Amino acid sequence: MTKLQDLVSLCKRRGIIFQNSEIYGGIAGFFDYGPIGAPMKMNLKKVWWNEIVKNRKNVVGIDGTIITHPKVWEASGHVKGFADLLSECKSCHKRFRVDQLKKGKEKECPDCGKELGKPRKFNILFHTEVGVIEGEKTETYLRGEACQTIYLNYKNVLDSTRQKIPFGIAQIGKAFRNEVTPKNFLYRSREFEQWDLQFFVHPDNMESWYEFWKKERFNWYKSLLNNKENIRFREHDKDELVFYAKKAFDIEYKTDFAGWLEMEGIHWRADYDLIQHSKFSGKKLNYKDPQTGEEYIPWIVETSGGVDRTFMFLLLDAYTEEEVEGKKRTVLKIDPRLAAYQAAVMPLAANKPDLVKYANRVFKDLASKFSVDWDDSSNIGKKYRRQDEIGTPFCITIDFDTLKDDTVTVRERDSMKQKRVPVKNLENTLVKKLNI
Amino acid sequence: MTKLQDLVSLCKRRGIIFQNSEIYGGIAGFFDYGPIGAPMKMNLKKVWWNEIVKNRKNVVGIDGTIITHPKVWEASGHVKGFADLLSECKSCHKRFRVDQLKKGKEKECPDCGKELGKPRKFNILFHTEVGVIEGEKTETYLRGEACQTIYLNYKNVLDSTRQKIPFGIAQIGKAFRNEVTPKNFLYRSREFEQWDLQFFVHPDNMESWYEFWKKERFNWYKSLLNNKENIRFREHDKDELVFYAKKAFDIEYKTDFAGWLEMEGIHWRADYDLIQHSKFSGKKLNYKDPQTGEEYIPWIVETSGGVDRTFMFLLLDAYTEEEVEGKKRTVLKIDPRLAAYQAAVMPLAANKPDLVKYANRVFKDLASKFSVDWDDSSNIGKKYRRQDEIGTPFCITIDFDTLKDDTVTVRERDSMKQKRVPVKNLENTLVKKLNI
Repeated sequence: MTKLQDLVSLCKRRGIIFQNSEIYGGIAGFFDYGPIGAPMKMNLKKVWWNEIVKNRKNVVGIDGTIITHPKVWEASGHVKGFADLLSECKSCHKRFRVDQLKKGKEKECPDCGKELGKPRKFNILFHTEVGVIEGEKTETYLRGEACQTIYLNYKNVLDSTRQKIPFGIAQIGKAFRNEVTPKNFLYRSREFEQWDLQFFVHPDNMESWYEFWKKERFNWYKSLLNNKENIRFREHDKDELVFYAKKAFDIEYKTDFAGWLEMEGIHWRADYDLIQHSKFSGKKLNYKDPQTGEEYIPWIVETSGGVDRTFMFLLLDAYTEEEVEGKKRTVLKIDPRLAAYQAAVMPLAANKPDLVKYANRVFKDLASKFSVDWDDSSNIGKKYRRQDEIGTPFCITIDFDTLKDDTVTVRERDSMKQKRVPVKNLENTLVKKLNI
Repeated sequence: MTKLQDLVSLCKRRGIIFQNSEIYGGIAGFFDYGPIGAPMKMNLKKVWWNEIVKNRKNVVGIDGTIITHPKVWEASGHVKGFADLLSECKSCHKRFRVDQLKKGKEKECPDCGKELGKPRKFNILFHTEVGVIEGEKTETYLRGEACQTIYLNYKNVLDSTRQKIPFGIAQIGKAFRNEVTPKNFLYRSREFEQWDLQFFVHPDNMESWYEFWKKERFNWYKSLLNNKENIRFREHDKDELVFYAKKAFDIEYKTDFAGWLEMEGIHWRADYDLIQHSKFSGKKLNYKDPQTGEEYIPWIVETSGGVDRTFMFLLLDAYTEEEVEGKKRTVLKIDPRLAAYQAAVMPLAANKPDLVKYANRVFKDLASKFSVDWDDSSNIGKKYRRQDEIGTPFCITIDFDTLKDDTVTVRERDSMKQKRVPVKNLENTLVKKLNI
């Protein structure tokens, strides 16, 4: 079993991730977040939003639709160019991505000698139609990248806020790609979320802002990882660059099943996108400097990452198997800000009304401040095991001593150390330990 | 101008809502949330999530995909039945929804005498195809209602959590309906978000749980409104009910442009959905009571509301025009928990480095705890006006006295009252006033 296989199994067992439409045999490349995964993903997005939007004066956030006007995707180049080049194996008739073959990453056709046909292009935009009446229908697409919605609203943001260049527009939202070979769990799925920052600058300052954001983003990802050696930059080769890009860097995470994989890209988009949308829409997308009067099309530094793949990398980073007293302990050593529950409250026994009543009071007090799980099942060992597997930083047990001296046992996830804490200090103890 | 028109104009001017793809002429039924609207909507969803999921032991939350296996929509009845009945006007060739005509709500065809043709059905599911290679494509749909993803995961949730009946699964997520006549701003759009709770109960307890959730949901919506008289229940007539429903209630909001409109529905879904999915998937979806051993298909109480329409109703409820010293003041008297910013920090003058430096320190301190706007533009009147229009509960001004005595002016949005507060008490003052 690879670590990924262990993780997939944990995710299903503990309600983190389920295959979508599983009762119908599933649908490749679509995953649902379960009772534990959904709040974890919410927390992860919040941590990003705080980092990029809330704590900065010069970045605002938007939330746009998935379906847009079809011209958007002509302007962006996706209708013509958002395609995978595929080759068909003449023997088994499977199709393979040519770029993956070149990198030596496709290994699903080992038996047929790899006699591949001429590469053909397949567009990976999902199409749909808006309008239900023949003659009034518009064929359009689900957005293939979320950032286009930001370009569409660049003028609206300028007109409705007091932002001046340099400033950024950020967004977290779903995008859809009809991948030929969805694989590696959440890594290459067909429906996924992206977190994007488009930072608008004067062309003269492009270089320094590019380097600024490159550093910011790397440090942020690093801060979320336990194993700091599993993150790196990969600079794109000259022949990988689009014509308007001076450089490009990926932030990569090291997996044990497919080596280094992309987590986020730092892109030199220059004025390409605004020029394209200006051309296709006929609207002037210039910026006029209120101080100098200079008019120009802003250049853009993009930082664009995958929420779901980051989620998966963080789970892989956190997934730990340890031997404790001769037994295997599986524990998710995840950043406490991302855990589904910050604490679990447990009466030592469910059939003792006094304990349950007391525990209920503790639960209620904490739930107004933290995200708290409740577990009144019978076996304390099983309860700890469950909370370890979903990464709950603290377990709080109400036992018979509690009834006498108003103290509870607080058990820490990573060290498994237990400490008696007076109930009245519980909130402060958690605030301090969780660093919130 | 109706209040709605005023609101639409405010939303564009202040960055709350933009028409999607506006630079391309827009696309009917699709709206983007701007720099102010995006955080407001996030806050609204968080308030719902806390109410329904976080603060209850017997409800868990999930987050599923928009694209699912096509069989889901056969089982749900949407492929056959999710259709609008349309009649074409023989004179102007416009199409009208027959149900709307019956209610007397369609008024767009006043000039042609309304000679309407025979009604025809138009399915309003958005379709798309998964897979890019001919022969391997699957035609499927964007989900027409988010709740189906919950039914799909009902077994997974049971297997991965310790929930026992009665318990609920909740979700906030996008759904898509190819409405023939999208209209009334966010009320009837084609891409929108729903918040759903599916609560699984023993058939014998259906009645009491139905009444429980009916009350809970009504009180929650009411708690968010200033004008409590603008909310009511509407009981569905017998001939509106689906065959398995004993009753159905809508929670409605009273608008000045279209009367009472639906905000949320409380639905008696009984065992219909699980039976359908069991039939179409061939999987057993029974529940076995761990205490009694009784095996049965659970019955479901659904509470399903529209996030975007609720957002619009709350804006309408909050939108206020007042006369202050002979001038019009527009103010958004929105629940402070929903405001984009809980406070705005303003140096009295932007060209006084001492003031700006001090204000910056205040901003930084508060931003770690609250969502805070920064405004160093010149005119204090304009600054207040802007914050009033986006509903910021408190404006904090740093002036020359601040430099002497470390106090700031705190101005309250609704009363416009100003008070000097020591900087060191600022955080506590806000926590107290915001009730967080």
